[in-house]
Amino acid sequence: MHVNAWAAPAAGQPLARTTIERRAVGEHDVLIAIEYAGICHSDIHTVNGDWGPQPYPVVPGHEIVGTVAEVGSAVTTHQVGDRVGVGCFVDSCRECVNCLAGNEQFCLNGGVATYAATDRDGTTTQGGYSTHVVVRDHFVLSVPDGIDPAAAAPLLCAGITTYSPLKRWGAGPGKQVAIVGLGGLGHMGVKIAHAMGAEVTVLSQSLKKQGDAERLGADRYFATSDPATFQQLAGRFDLIVNTVSAALDANAYLGLLAVDGALVNVGAPPAPYSVDPMSLIYGRHTFAGSMIGGIAETQEMLDFCAEHGLGADVEVISADKVNQAYERVLASDVRYRFVIDAATI
Amino acid sequence: MHVNAWAAPAAGQPLARTTIERRAVGEHDVLIAIEYAGICHSDIHTVNGDWGPQPYPVVPGHEIVGTVAEVGSAVTTHQVGDRVGVGCFVDSCRECVNCLAGNEQFCLNGGVATYAATDRDGTTTQGGYSTHVVVRDHFVLSVPDGIDPAAAAPLLCAGITTYSPLKRWGAGPGKQVAIVGLGGLGHMGVKIAHAMGAEVTVLSQSLKKQGDAERLGADRYFATSDPATFQQLAGRFDLIVNTVSAALDANAYLGLLAVDGALVNVGAPPAPYSVDPMSLIYGRHTFAGSMIGGIAETQEMLDFCAEHGLGADVEVISADKVNQAYERVLASDVRYRFVIDAATI
Repeated sequence: MHVNAWAAPAAGQPLARTTIERRAVGEHDVLIAIEYAGICHSDIHTVNGDWGPQPYPVVPGHEIVGTVAEVGSAVTTHQVGDRVGVGCFVDSCRECVNCLAGNEQFCLNGGVATYAATDRDGTTTQGGYSTHVVVRDHFVLSVPDGIDPAAAAPLLCAGITTYSPLKRWGAGPGKQVAIVGLGGLGHMGVKIAHAMGAEVTVLSQSLKKQGDAERLGADRYFATSDPATFQQLAGRFDLIVNTVSAALDANAYLGLLAVDGALVNVGAPPAPYSVDPMSLIYGRHTFAGSMIGGIAETQEMLDFCAEHGLGADVEVISADKVNQAYERVLASDVRYRFVIDAATI
Repeated sequence: MHVNAWAAPAAGQPLARTTIERRAVGEHDVLIAIEYAGICHSDIHTVNGDWGPQPYPVVPGHEIVGTVAEVGSAVTTHQVGDRVGVGCFVDSCRECVNCLAGNEQFCLNGGVATYAATDRDGTTTQGGYSTHVVVRDHFVLSVPDGIDPAAAAPLLCAGITTYSPLKRWGAGPGKQVAIVGLGGLGHMGVKIAHAMGAEVTVLSQSLKKQGDAERLGADRYFATSDPATFQQLAGRFDLIVNTVSAALDANAYLGLLAVDGALVNVGAPPAPYSVDPMSLIYGRHTFAGSMIGGIAETQEMLDFCAEHGLGADVEVISADKVNQAYERVLASDVRYRFVIDAATI
């Protein structure tokens, strides 16, 4: 099946319209007619070759929402017409201890990323900047009624990336939660933490997004460029989720934790952290990381968002604006996620 | 009240017999006739001035077991003749959020360490290498019948230091726990983790303590000097408690964690850790620290040890051997804790 797509032809080249081949629908496959595809910062890193050589042409996109157009004979979990989503991976071994525990993102035999990865049949995966995609049933999420499909797309990466650490480290009533950075990830972190019932503080470089943060559900907002912030908030938080991929003064942020508090990174800065042992020992602090979430947890996140009326704040664009959107993402000029309208692909 | 004690007269000087003053028993105080005092590596660091200037003469000792000789008029929790213990701190504000939560070791208004600290009345605290000590009732633990009092003394520091992270990070049946280092802390870590029902692995520099480790309750033993250890055990552990205060290749040990595993440090190496962000993000790993435990948790630990028949492996010495014992601790030539017989003080 030939379908339209937007692909990066080579590292650093603008994306351009092309056609790609999707595999025939196998017995466990779901053919999805894509409606929306979110633009994640990872897409830009990947097509630019920041993370190493890529199998160009690369069709990015791992925040996919659409409707089921066809199902294989063995598919029982999805039906034609259902609204569904696909996130950062489209297959895994489903046999290793991590897959069996629902942590397919850490598949020991090599999960298959949604794009620029080698699929189990040896072909290269191509992502969501496309009109259609074929995905094995287990990796297809149900998007509940009541979430706008464009606003749902970013949940498949930005949503689960923040939901998973918030859930695991106990964000909820009576808990003080800080979100570092108010971008695509951070704005979902604020919405989800607020919906979980936590007291939410945004820690952002400047005060310029304060109004937005409050509208998203933040109770407080502080500028990290002001050194007084670190004195004033010392020992305050039960959980800090750091969504920023720039270098981080880990000890300064660990100093903001209460006893038994956790600082969890979902961004990966380019250099190692330097961590003072006493920043951990004193206060029994946790410094941790988290990477998206497994399929069951992603479904749980979608259901949670539907129940609480949450979606991403999106700016829907036509596909021919994708290169311009990339520039604006790099300039942090989006509030808070671009989503491509697949009808324009 | 004048009592005998062994004190370091100045940094780097051998300890010598002396007499010190203990305060009169106040209404909330307990006078303890000391039976045994453990020798902790911290004692040596402190008297040597490794951790900064000290208020010499310093009487070390924060692993104290004895019997109650007198109680103040308001004391209801302890009676004359009871066997009791004192650990690393002898007072705190008992009002701050950390104290109220049972985390007196993190008192926000400054807890009072058992020795070389300024007490709330302005005097300098003196530790357990002494015949008697006066301690506020709240900070006096009950040592249950059934633990040999000499073997109980090290529980007040080495026991709680390892119990607290093992408990907090879920050591128990079906869990793979590793203890790094088999010294005073490590040998208690092995005993406690085994008693909690975990599968216990010792990671030690060489294989020379393997027989001991198995006798203490370890299921497996690996030498960390062998690079194959880190390949063979990759992704194995739910919890690693690092008891070693030397520099640690944090990323190598984080690589031994299973998904959601935790590497917890109870030792404080002299330089910061270098932590690769992906060591945390991939596998949703925790890197944490832990420092002794609060009073309620210390009591819980003592009760747990009594229930499971656990005490430290000790070499009881007379007080005049304390300087020799310090040399042997520095040479790792003790299995696994020296305890001073206070009758010889």
